[in-house]
Amino acid sequence: MNAIKNFEELKNHLKSTGTRKRLALANALDSHSLEAVMMSVEEGFIDAYLVGKKEEVSKLLEQEFGSKIKEYEQYLHIVDCRGDAVEAATEAALMVRNKQCDMLMKGLVNTDVILRAVLNKEKGIHTPGNVLAFNSCFDIPMYHKLVFMTDPAIIPEPTKEQRIAMIKYSIETARKFGVSRPKIALIHATEVANPKIRFMQDYLDIMEMYRNGEFGDVVMDGPVDVFLAIDKERGEIKRIDTPVLGDADILIFPDFQSANVFYKTAQTFGNASMAGLVYGADSPVVITSRSDSTDTKFYSICMACVLA
Amino acid sequence: MNAIKNFEELKNHLKSTGTRKRLALANALDSHSLEAVMMSVEEGFIDAYLVGKKEEVSKLLEQEFGSKIKEYEQYLHIVDCRGDAVEAATEAALMVRNKQCDMLMKGLVNTDVILRAVLNKEKGIHTPGNVLAFNSCFDIPMYHKLVFMTDPAIIPEPTKEQRIAMIKYSIETARKFGVSRPKIALIHATEVANPKIRFMQDYLDIMEMYRNGEFGDVVMDGPVDVFLAIDKERGEIKRIDTPVLGDADILIFPDFQSANVFYKTAQTFGNASMAGLVYGADSPVVITSRSDSTDTKFYSICMACVLA
Repeated sequence: MNAIKNFEELKNHLKSTGTRKRLALANALDSHSLEAVMMSVEEGFIDAYLVGKKEEVSKLLEQEFGSKIKEYEQYLHIVDCRGDAVEAATEAALMVRNKQCDMLMKGLVNTDVILRAVLNKEKGIHTPGNVLAFNSCFDIPMYHKLVFMTDPAIIPEPTKEQRIAMIKYSIETARKFGVSRPKIALIHATEVANPKIRFMQDYLDIMEMYRNGEFGDVVMDGPVDVFLAIDKERGEIKRIDTPVLGDADILIFPDFQSANVFYKTAQTFGNASMAGLVYGADSPVVITSRSDSTDTKFYSICMACVLA
Repeated sequence: MNAIKNFEELKNHLKSTGTRKRLALANALDSHSLEAVMMSVEEGFIDAYLVGKKEEVSKLLEQEFGSKIKEYEQYLHIVDCRGDAVEAATEAALMVRNKQCDMLMKGLVNTDVILRAVLNKEKGIHTPGNVLAFNSCFDIPMYHKLVFMTDPAIIPEPTKEQRIAMIKYSIETARKFGVSRPKIALIHATEVANPKIRFMQDYLDIMEMYRNGEFGDVVMDGPVDVFLAIDKERGEIKRIDTPVLGDADILIFPDFQSANVFYKTAQTFGNASMAGLVYGADSPVVITSRSDSTDTKFYSICMACVLA
């Protein structure tokens, strides 16, 4: 498999597989998430289970998509749930737990509610001890391939174990996108390993693990700055010898502040398209926010399909 | 004075004043910094004092600019310094201290060396107790005005006092650029003031100072995320009521990691032009790095001219 280099290729790759993954949408009463799900159904790679009050979901479907529903009705299943959003989230997670669905997606429900449904011991989809983190994939017009990054949203200051888990999730993801030997950059403000910086020992330990082969067939360097990782021209001027130079597939940020700044600056000023997933559950979880575009929701579903 | 909205206006503003500021270039043996100084001389707002070994500086000038030197020779003064780069830096700083020059600029000398020359008690230009920080100004094609941000380079994790000093430098700068009522965003990953986040109490205290009028006629909000601060469209979707919405003049980052990520991502993917200065010395100090373009060096000199 060739590496998937942008979101257009991602979509085409999924269409070419000819298989539909089953998605459980928790409280399917939000027109934006429904729209993204419907796009995925139409493109041919999603079979949707819409969990919520049947008459309300039907009404919204009718209102948003009208006659199209008939055409795709075999892929649109309304799962009637009489309870509130919390119950709809629990029900949707349970469907994934019971292998009736392959992935979970947030509809009209708060993020903390869906995460609680994921973590629910009896009905959720989380193996105790696994690190939950957010992993994003960016398609940036000024970059020559996709870039994966973590974690802009869930863990404020990761421990070393959490960093290692996030790196492993990212490597696994890059491989499923066809990147045979992912290049990983451990991001810091400079390439200098100042021991006074709070996470530097983690970076040094992780680099040692890398040299011992504990991450498999990957290329890793750190600390490196954003220029060295993704800006070949500016990186070269620094004359630092790094094997990731301007060609990183994966950016590991020191904390969720700096990751969040990348995440939002790349979108605002870089015209980047974004996809994102919660990792560490037993199945992919699509959690997008209100401020995300329909495209972001759609590409996040695509990303989940690659991993499910 | 109208607010200066981009670097073209900045240049034109300086040309319109008709005055030349005197710049001391420490160890003037680097063709990139010399080129930026020469541009400023030609544009009409710099009178340059080139500190270094006379014959070497002369040779480089001749080689880089040839016949142009004759035309501008009244603004190009070689200050012969027989010593090494450390001595050249010390000599250049002393010229600023003695009011023979208005600003200091780094030539072929390491950043730590020039900072030591700035901090030198007998020959430097630093009042003890003043916070040294790096302050950048960005001209971003996708933003409607200049944005000032701090600190991507000097202080890894600012104390509250350092944050307050940086905010005051930024306000002073924005005002000198004609922004009568600067909008300041205290950046965090979200708009939620989570008390577990290490710098949150600083933000809350600073907001209290703001409400007490301690920053003068400004608009401030925090914590806010990058979307709320500079992305009106995505910020609006969040439906958070903030007076800085998509219109911030000044971004205050929680630490130099996140500031550095903004600094480098905006340049790499946002096609941003950048200017930057070290603040907190008694006069502006232009410290650009090897990886900075000549434009960045030139605009940094422009920024210093506005402040000197």
